[in-house]
Amino acid sequence: MPSVRLKYFDAKGRAEPVRFMFALDGVDYEDIRYSQEEFAKVKATMPFGQVPVLEVDDITVPHSKAIYTFVAAQHGFLPADNLGRAHVDVVIETISDTDFDSTKWFFEQEELMKHLKDVTFPKMKENLEKILSENNGGLFGDKLSLADVITFSMLHDGLAMFTGKEPGSCSLSDYPLLEGFVARFKALPKIATYLEKRPNTPY
Amino acid sequence: MPSVRLKYFDAKGRAEPVRFMFALDGVDYEDIRYSQEEFAKVKATMPFGQVPVLEVDDITVPHSKAIYTFVAAQHGFLPADNLGRAHVDVVIETISDTDFDSTKWFFEQEELMKHLKDVTFPKMKENLEKILSENNGGLFGDKLSLADVITFSMLHDGLAMFTGKEPGSCSLSDYPLLEGFVARFKALPKIATYLEKRPNTPY
Repeated sequence: MPSVRLKYFDAKGRAEPVRFMFALDGVDYEDIRYSQEEFAKVKATMPFGQVPVLEVDDITVPHSKAIYTFVAAQHGFLPADNLGRAHVDVVIETISDTDFDSTKWFFEQEELMKHLKDVTFPKMKENLEKILSENNGGLFGDKLSLADVITFSMLHDGLAMFTGKEPGSCSLSDYPLLEGFVARFKALPKIATYLEKRPNTPY
Repeated sequence: MPSVRLKYFDAKGRAEPVRFMFALDGVDYEDIRYSQEEFAKVKATMPFGQVPVLEVDDITVPHSKAIYTFVAAQHGFLPADNLGRAHVDVVIETISDTDFDSTKWFFEQEELMKHLKDVTFPKMKENLEKILSENNGGLFGDKLSLADVITFSMLHDGLAMFTGKEPGSCSLSDYPLLEGFVARFKALPKIATYLEKRPNTPY
């Protein structure tokens, strides 16, 4: 069995989609969580001075999206055909469209929370709802994919973080397909178990 | 032969890496370029109200990065193995690390040009130089990949745009491996031909 280490802060953030995939596939891994002080000491040992970093035996993968795709491919959450893969990428990029405003939020919090709430996230939810409506209520086919993992991570944890709420407490009642999607994903036994046991961090 | 249409503004921007791949593989395609006025009229017909959009026969792919991966996979610029793919993703994300500051630049140009020039781009160039130094002067193996296309696009056109210069005129003399990379890619006959013939747009 390969030795797997995930290095990140003591936070959900950009590592959580990887943890969801490991939970779904029953992967045994070392979940290394640095405090800000600890990270300052190890920063220079990271490939680009950043986390998350994934280590599988002697392979090191930096950069969250590179890690997502690699883990998804290794553990059966990435379609093998080019068109299926493009479909998953479209879902990921629909969520990444919020990165700019979300990142600004960290620096100019008050002013931007309103913009995220009124403009950025509604547009994202509307686009994801459109994707679900065009795919019989799924993001892509019948099989779980990276698209599901990333979407749940944003809707359950991301929306809550940016609006100062508890994970999973943001209403999706205006988006019935998304609401159903989140409920179904959350009820997957391996995800339910993981959510129950994961450390309670604000990000 | 499939019918291929690339829809974007009359600009290099997020469509140019796709055009580079089409040039390299000799793809015959319709290069649809909207003025701002024309785009306002067709915006509602785009999947998410945005361009670029790629249409291949009856397949529609929105979102630049989904298009990059799809085109790279279809035309032989994406490694088939998971680790090779992760390596290409790392290069792409090293460049995407500049997206936040680059996007802000469009809104707060003067203040940010200095930050991009002094902080954001040097960090990216340093990280790309590191990747090249660890791979015998290549970004990934001996075969051209999406990593090469995205990197050339940023170093040749992106850096120039954000610093108000002509494409290809930004000095890379502090980064000898990057300088050599750009010179080699630019000298590829199909790229040289494409660069000579492409419309002269500021972005």
